[in-house]
Amino acid sequence: MRFLHTADWHIGKRLGDFSLQVEQQDAFQKIVAIARQEQVDAVVIAGDLYDRSLASEESVQTVNGMLEYLNLHEHLPLLIISGNHDSAVRLSTGDKWMRQAGVHIVTDLEDAMKPIIIDDTQFFLLPYFEPYQARNFFADRTIKTTQDAVIKLVAQMQKMFDPTKKHVLVAHFFAANQAGSTQQSEAVVGGVDMVATGVLQPFDYVALGHIHNPQALTDEKIKYSGTPLMFSTGEITQTKGVRIIDTTPFNSQFIPLTPLHAIKKLTGTFADVTSFDQQAQVEKTDYVAVELTDQEPVMDAFNRLHAVYPRLFELTRRRIRRHPQQRNNISRYVHSEQLDPVVVLRDFYQYVTGQPLAPAQEKWALKVRQEVDDNETN
Amino acid sequence: MRFLHTADWHIGKRLGDFSLQVEQQDAFQKIVAIARQEQVDAVVIAGDLYDRSLASEESVQTVNGMLEYLNLHEHLPLLIISGNHDSAVRLSTGDKWMRQAGVHIVTDLEDAMKPIIIDDTQFFLLPYFEPYQARNFFADRTIKTTQDAVIKLVAQMQKMFDPTKKHVLVAHFFAANQAGSTQQSEAVVGGVDMVATGVLQPFDYVALGHIHNPQALTDEKIKYSGTPLMFSTGEITQTKGVRIIDTTPFNSQFIPLTPLHAIKKLTGTFADVTSFDQQAQVEKTDYVAVELTDQEPVMDAFNRLHAVYPRLFELTRRRIRRHPQQRNNISRYVHSEQLDPVVVLRDFYQYVTGQPLAPAQEKWALKVRQEVDDNETN
Repeated sequence: MRFLHTADWHIGKRLGDFSLQVEQQDAFQKIVAIARQEQVDAVVIAGDLYDRSLASEESVQTVNGMLEYLNLHEHLPLLIISGNHDSAVRLSTGDKWMRQAGVHIVTDLEDAMKPIIIDDTQFFLLPYFEPYQARNFFADRTIKTTQDAVIKLVAQMQKMFDPTKKHVLVAHFFAANQAGSTQQSEAVVGGVDMVATGVLQPFDYVALGHIHNPQALTDEKIKYSGTPLMFSTGEITQTKGVRIIDTTPFNSQFIPLTPLHAIKKLTGTFADVTSFDQQAQVEKTDYVAVELTDQEPVMDAFNRLHAVYPRLFELTRRRIRRHPQQRNNISRYVHSEQLDPVVVLRDFYQYVTGQPLAPAQEKWALKVRQEVDDNETN
Repeated sequence: MRFLHTADWHIGKRLGDFSLQVEQQDAFQKIVAIARQEQVDAVVIAGDLYDRSLASEESVQTVNGMLEYLNLHEHLPLLIISGNHDSAVRLSTGDKWMRQAGVHIVTDLEDAMKPIIIDDTQFFLLPYFEPYQARNFFADRTIKTTQDAVIKLVAQMQKMFDPTKKHVLVAHFFAANQAGSTQQSEAVVGGVDMVATGVLQPFDYVALGHIHNPQALTDEKIKYSGTPLMFSTGEITQTKGVRIIDTTPFNSQFIPLTPLHAIKKLTGTFADVTSFDQQAQVEKTDYVAVELTDQEPVMDAFNRLHAVYPRLFELTRRRIRRHPQQRNNISRYVHSEQLDPVVVLRDFYQYVTGQPLAPAQEKWALKVRQEVDDNETN
């Protein structure tokens, strides 16, 4: 069989003051077109359909409409789990009826043990969960971490394996490669929410959600689909898309999605980022983040930049880099009241601007100190 | 056919600090038992399944469970509309799939025009709406009130009437009898949200939600089901229940529901309401509202009453009744700075306590005024 693997739609997500509704609808239409063109037999959505558990009415309407379209219009079976951003309870509304039409929404651990069979494949749908939920589910107090739980869950699932079928796990957690790490066990045990990919080897494919970067794992059969859209400046270098998986013979293909509107990050002085060259490279509909590197204060920077970039959603200022030596100097200010105020001022200025006081500034500082001293002695 | 008519479940409703979850589950079980015993062919829920549009997860889980039970376990068709307390969007989640199993959730005006046929009856499901929604729907700017809209909606529905069938309207608004009122048109036109029962005569039965009192209308074929439970002290005198309707021949029967825990209101002085006799009439699990009639302040009344009545959810104090004459006297205080302060005090004391100043109090007041006067002249 062939299925489409996507995740982390985060419907309701905003970029600063901007709703991404239009971009998300566009990405959805593109996913539908891919599903159609690739003639997939099912669509897997590995969690985080919503951006928050208390989704707005608009977001609920959007997700309802998307699921209706995929299943009732495109007649595609859907395999869905709740992610950490979803409310499991709210997402499960209507699930008992949807199941009859091939929409499988799994939001609790119990249902994760009941494989859904489509063609030659058993799908195990494991929703996002906290370790305590697995601890209660198995009545096993030794379960402390997500990995502890996943080891036990996978063992349970393996008992259900039909050896004539392929086995796919759909899950929403933080998985990490063991290979290549010299301190593998330490790295894995280190995070309570991290699962070593080794634990997932019994499956023919693991369709993951949670990490927005589709290139986050190098394992051939354990993959994040990533988000359909960029959701922050940190994701600008990532190629977004969906995966098409064939089970027999196994094949995995990444199909990129071109966003309706780009997210761009401009770094430089105010003059740099508002230069004609820079402006020419930005569309009016692009979402823009600016990082200013000016040493001097820039007055009313947000509004002035907003006039140039109407979709400015973020403004940051680069912190000046300091030598470790300089940072250590700060410790002497624990008892700063014993220091000469001019020394404090000199150091502070240097710390903030990376420059020494100018001679004139130094002179003004000394003059003010003199005046204060004179007043105190009078 | 025979159906059960209920409405205004208000899942998530609280009485003061108390959740009514247990009582609502109990009432639901009783409704299921009635539906079973009366062998109804369908259940009508005329709006306000939830108490608020942003329902808690617990409430969502409760309502989901109730609808699942009625339809998937009891195999009953459900005819549901959204009320003013529901979010139409949230309530409609999954409705497209539920329809195939006979669960009809109607949340927009368009669907109200598509009758649902069960046996010998056409059901028209009209969700709660604001006049502007009908104005947009009909593109008719003359629609100002709910009644304007309902007149037009009913005319539209009548075009869909199959003369070989019975016609039932399910709706959620404030309807009022015209009969018996000498100023009927005025009374009806008076409220923008009020609909005259005359407008609803084309139907064989109108199953209403919105008003919690099942005895609110005297019309034989236009009825509120009322709430399954009392939700405030104002509802204490009402008998709560559900209605069983036969369409052919027409028959309407009210079946009362006994609440799991009573709501009681105790009125009297602190001594009265905490007397042994009074306490003996209240179960520890009863919800209790107290109205104190003491003239004097009662210190720490809530905590002391709470110790006696653990489910105390409301404490009020009766306002002293006054003759209209006394009320009118208040008007002279618009310019109270021109009045003798002792006169003001005397009147104020009389107003609040219903008693004149005691001679000693009068003497103290005069003394204080004298002291103030002396100070001002010095």
